[in-house]
Amino acid sequence: MLILMHPTATPEDVEQVATKVRDLGFTPHKMPGAQRIAVAITGNPGPVDPGFFAHMPGVFEAVSISKPWKLVSRETHPHDTVVSLKGPNGTASRLGGGVFGVFAGPCAVETREQTLAAARTVRESGARFLRGGAYKPRTSPYSFQGTKLEGLKILAEARAETGMPVVTEVIDPQHVDQVAEYADILQIGTRNAQNFALLEAVAESGKPVMLKRGMSSTIQEFLMAAEYIVKGGNYNVILCERGIRTFEPMTRNTLDLGSIPLIKRLTHLPIIVDPSHGTGDALSVPALARAALAVGADGVMVDVHPDPSKALCDGPQSLTPAIFASLMDSLRAIAQVMKVELV
Amino acid sequence: MLILMHPTATPEDVEQVATKVRDLGFTPHKMPGAQRIAVAITGNPGPVDPGFFAHMPGVFEAVSISKPWKLVSRETHPHDTVVSLKGPNGTASRLGGGVFGVFAGPCAVETREQTLAAARTVRESGARFLRGGAYKPRTSPYSFQGTKLEGLKILAEARAETGMPVVTEVIDPQHVDQVAEYADILQIGTRNAQNFALLEAVAESGKPVMLKRGMSSTIQEFLMAAEYIVKGGNYNVILCERGIRTFEPMTRNTLDLGSIPLIKRLTHLPIIVDPSHGTGDALSVPALARAALAVGADGVMVDVHPDPSKALCDGPQSLTPAIFASLMDSLRAIAQVMKVELV
Amino acid sequence: MLILMHPTATPEDVEQVATKVRDLGFTPHKMPGAQRIAVAITGNPGPVDPGFFAHMPGVFEAVSISKPWKLVSRETHPHDTVVSLKGPNGTASRLGGGVFGVFAGPCAVETREQTLAAARTVRESGARFLRGGAYKPRTSPYSFQGTKLEGLKILAEARAETGMPVVTEVIDPQHVDQVAEYADILQIGTRNAQNFALLEAVAESGKPVMLKRGMSSTIQEFLMAAEYIVKGGNYNVILCERGIRTFEPMTRNTLDLGSIPLIKRLTHLPIIVDPSHGTGDALSVPALARAALAVGADGVMVDVHPDPSKALCDGPQSLTPAIFASLMDSLRAIAQVMKVELV
Amino acid sequence: MLILMHPTATPEDVEQVATKVRDLGFTPHKMPGAQRIAVAITGNPGPVDPGFFAHMPGVFEAVSISKPWKLVSRETHPHDTVVSLKGPNGTASRLGGGVFGVFAGPCAVETREQTLAAARTVRESGARFLRGGAYKPRTSPYSFQGTKLEGLKILAEARAETGMPVVTEVIDPQHVDQVAEYADILQIGTRNAQNFALLEAVAESGKPVMLKRGMSSTIQEFLMAAEYIVKGGNYNVILCERGIRTFEPMTRNTLDLGSIPLIKRLTHLPIIVDPSHGTGDALSVPALARAALAVGADGVMVDVHPDPSKALCDGPQSLTPAIFASLMDSLRAIAQVMKVELV
Repeated sequence: MLILMHPTATPEDVEQVATKVRDLGFTPHKMPGAQRIAVAITGNPGPVDPGFFAHMPGVFEAVSISKPWKLVSRETHPHDTVVSLKGPNGTASRLGGGVFGVFAGPCAVETREQTLAAARTVRESGARFLRGGAYKPRTSPYSFQGTKLEGLKILAEARAETGMPVVTEVIDPQHVDQVAEYADILQIGTRNAQNFALLEAVAESGKPVMLKRGMSSTIQEFLMAAEYIVKGGNYNVILCERGIRTFEPMTRNTLDLGSIPLIKRLTHLPIIVDPSHGTGDALSVPALARAALAVGADGVMVDVHPDPSKALCDGPQSLTPAIFASLMDSLRAIAQVMKVELV
Repeated sequence: MLILMHPTATPEDVEQVATKVRDLGFTPHKMPGAQRIAVAITGNPGPVDPGFFAHMPGVFEAVSISKPWKLVSRETHPHDTVVSLKGPNGTASRLGGGVFGVFAGPCAVETREQTLAAARTVRESGARFLRGGAYKPRTSPYSFQGTKLEGLKILAEARAETGMPVVTEVIDPQHVDQVAEYADILQIGTRNAQNFALLEAVAESGKPVMLKRGMSSTIQEFLMAAEYIVKGGNYNVILCERGIRTFEPMTRNTLDLGSIPLIKRLTHLPIIVDPSHGTGDALSVPALARAALAVGADGVMVDVHPDPSKALCDGPQSLTPAIFASLMDSLRAIAQVMKVELV
Repeated sequence: MLILMHPTATPEDVEQVATKVRDLGFTPHKMPGAQRIAVAITGNPGPVDPGFFAHMPGVFEAVSISKPWKLVSRETHPHDTVVSLKGPNGTASRLGGGVFGVFAGPCAVETREQTLAAARTVRESGARFLRGGAYKPRTSPYSFQGTKLEGLKILAEARAETGMPVVTEVIDPQHVDQVAEYADILQIGTRNAQNFALLEAVAESGKPVMLKRGMSSTIQEFLMAAEYIVKGGNYNVILCERGIRTFEPMTRNTLDLGSIPLIKRLTHLPIIVDPSHGTGDALSVPALARAALAVGADGVMVDVHPDPSKALCDGPQSLTPAIFASLMDSLRAIAQVMKVELV
Repeated sequence: MLILMHPTATPEDVEQVATKVRDLGFTPHKMPGAQRIAVAITGNPGPVDPGFFAHMPGVFEAVSISKPWKLVSRETHPHDTVVSLKGPNGTASRLGGGVFGVFAGPCAVETREQTLAAARTVRESGARFLRGGAYKPRTSPYSFQGTKLEGLKILAEARAETGMPVVTEVIDPQHVDQVAEYADILQIGTRNAQNFALLEAVAESGKPVMLKRGMSSTIQEFLMAAEYIVKGGNYNVILCERGIRTFEPMTRNTLDLGSIPLIKRLTHLPIIVDPSHGTGDALSVPALARAALAVGADGVMVDVHPDPSKALCDGPQSLTPAIFASLMDSLRAIAQVMKVELV
């Protein structure tokens, strides 16, 4: 924290600020400049609220200078976190630390047939994790809201058959136990990225969590949301960049691939990319999935539907099985160049 | 819904689109143009998903043309909704339909003394509703999280003494019953603006709801969130504009006063403005509160603290009692000019 | 400038940073903390580029702490700048320092009849400045591009008849002399807010300048653009907030009234508001003009057209003469409450 | 264009709209629906301004449905435009249509030595085009403004020695002739993306143009800016995505790679990516350059400086020669997988 004084501040003003710093238990450092004085604070264990100083006489501005996250930080834990999941058949599926993981499946679980068909085809093409939504948060109360418990059971059946761990969204703290019974990874959606009651509930569950970035979350808020889960004792967190909200109307979201190298430096947690929701457009998904691999992400999650034109939700962004298979081929070729493992 | 065909689309492509429209139970209208054909859809009771058509051969673009909200719309219900609340002493506090309501109080309930002092002073200056946070959603898990049940009891005591109805935030569906026991109006915060599980829970409670706009909610999403509550049978919804997230770093949020006249035309629900969270800066709050009245909002909500420099949360945006009193004077003068009731 | 070192930085790393500071001619201050060391810089006359330090060994972050504008700052010049213009008939029209100025007229000068009709009606209703576009910057090269020199002559005629000083946009440094010959105030449009060649050209002209905020300019960039003009020796700058670009699609721009009180504290220059371009919607303009006055702006600029339905440009946002007259009445009433002069 | 009527609109209202359409020379189509009537317009050669209808009695909304660009559209010209430039030694450097071009060099031309050193090293590592700024648009009038004519001469010397065509920015219509004398490609910077006077001037010059996306330009505005140049008879336009402005403060801009596949479908013009300005961070540049290739862009432009720590401008985002050489190696490997030519 640095308190920048106004050029017209009196010595008394400066001393008052120093006293306030000492009262809070920290150490003030007066730094005289050509035009004004600044008071730096040291000895504080965490961030100090600038509001303590902002309205004191003679104070021009209070600037916060340290980052507020701890447990998710690479400063605390320099090595990559690797999430490893055992499937029903005993094979482990890993993600992070040089292993690129592909999540695929239908946006929404509609029927047993559709979900099993999608699961088989993505498994065959090389996906390691099955995605599928049973509880669907929808902007309109009149839209399809998901198949709920029935959908969870279908996902469990698809997992049993294909051996793929399942990720599915949870939208209510009261559902966490139920969802955790059927799924391997609990997904927090973008609209719940700062639903702290839900973050605490999934932290307690002990299950691995996939945390999507809020559509208007800064990188700092994204990491702080992960900090809520890790602080709750749950270290198996997979971050997911899925696009942020900007002024551009022609793409559904603006996929923020530029944040990936920075996030990899700031945190030890793995981060994947969801180009299906990031673009909302199946024609753009394969190119963005390849870009996600090239930029250094630890995985991708893509919507695949046996027949996208009949999807009840987000059909326009779902890949056909054939296009997904061809995407996997190109990902394997790029993975070799990038020297990451894609199995 | 309008399906715009590509200039090179064949008559078979157009006929396929028309068939798909009929299959969905609606009526297609082929409209030949100079360069291309468009197919309009009529007979649909609600919005049609553009995804049904986006990837059909020859289709250039599918454009949605009707608004998706119903119950909150002025088309459905042309007259202003007026929210009327009885305080513990029997006096009714109204809002909407030409009555401008002032909500004031501490951002967070810290202690009994602080809350009662704030409640008394804002009541004396003319506020009609008491605000105060007991459950506080915070970006950091290391920040003060609120006084919770203890805070609710303090608010109830302040209500009993001052006669002001109380609004306080609820952040978890599992807390709704508890909060509803102590509060008159349940507040949904900006981070939960699309927490649909919570919206459904407050709808069921039957209590009046103050719904804050999500910091990245469009006006349409804001109204759809209100639609969730009203669809649940709860018509007493007060909208609250509290600033949206933009690229500007010098203000905490960008208060979107330009949306107020538009929202007033689109919906019959009352809308108030929160300049404290909208600017994050006590020095700007009075000016923005006056602007909110001048722009046609139905009320304002402002943070007032007996000693802002000691506030545990959002001190920099809280008004002192003296500045709040002077703000009320100027609001009364402008209300006369605007011909709205401010009691 | 504050250089925050990494917790693992060595004493040699810290000394290298201190040496670099001395090499630049400034003074380093080492501040030991509980977890890390910071190096503060004093003695620098202006901002130091953080890039000098960002990649040195052991450096975690370099934080800039002083504001980069000077001549436009209230710290430099505490009193309000008042812009005073003599009209052709000798009467002075003032703006700033407690005088609220109303600019009105057609968005585009289309014909002599339309412009004179608009000028007469707005003058009669109490506007003091005439606005009208002769050179029109348009997103599409196929849209109406303005009446150019012909339009300037029409504006000069309207000024001669009504006595109102004229503001009109200049879009090319090569036109500055020509436009300055006919207009009293040169307007820089939002798309040219960082067209520095144009800013320097209008600075040199010596004519008063109305500088619109860029649709994606931060407040800092807005003030820096004004600094370009003032640094060129031209102190008669009127700032104009006209809305910024955000994610909201239902309003043309997001009018940033929340920035006005802050800008008034940061700079001595007057600032007006353009609700016509800020909302793009005539039905919202009067409410926003009233809000601009209530929030403390020094004026408003509104589009008025004798027959908005026939306007070649921005008809949907233009007021009719009758609605403008009624707006002026309500502004006069609020000005009395706000104790500002509106003549 | 589709005019959506209000449910309460009378038959007279609808007929008035139809008459207005006919008056404009187009054909109205009345489409009765369950709740309301819509009027579609056909026969219009270009977009119709919704403002003609928005305020007519009974009109609910006027929706524009066709895209406004023509000459840059793939509908008009389905094949990729290939830009081919002859260097001083007669070798052609191509870009587009399956050829990936690398532009590299210093952000700013500072000295003859620095520029020649940068040019030699990037040529040696395989860059085909030399970038370097002589005229520098800077937010602050107190920042380094470029070496101007002197810089242009240095660039010409670097071109003569290395054989690389040169791209450099032009910021004033009055400089176009001078810059065109020394440079092979004229760059329009992000702040001038809607400086239409400048766009028209570079169109007239006949020189190839590199058009950067405005930091707040939509894809539509970006293409319309290119349309200004192509409409002026200059078809050699290279688009450049360089990041847009969003709420995220930790990256300098948000590089919009998600727009690349869409832009490739909408226009025949080549598009490159500038990860140096897009991220502002040398540590992220190589990863983003690889992602640009993987996503299907036609080239990249990166800042390279012989000694980034001494750069007068944007040092923190400049690569060292060694890191650039290693980036080129990885780009060549990915180009093979992507089956594009990178020479």
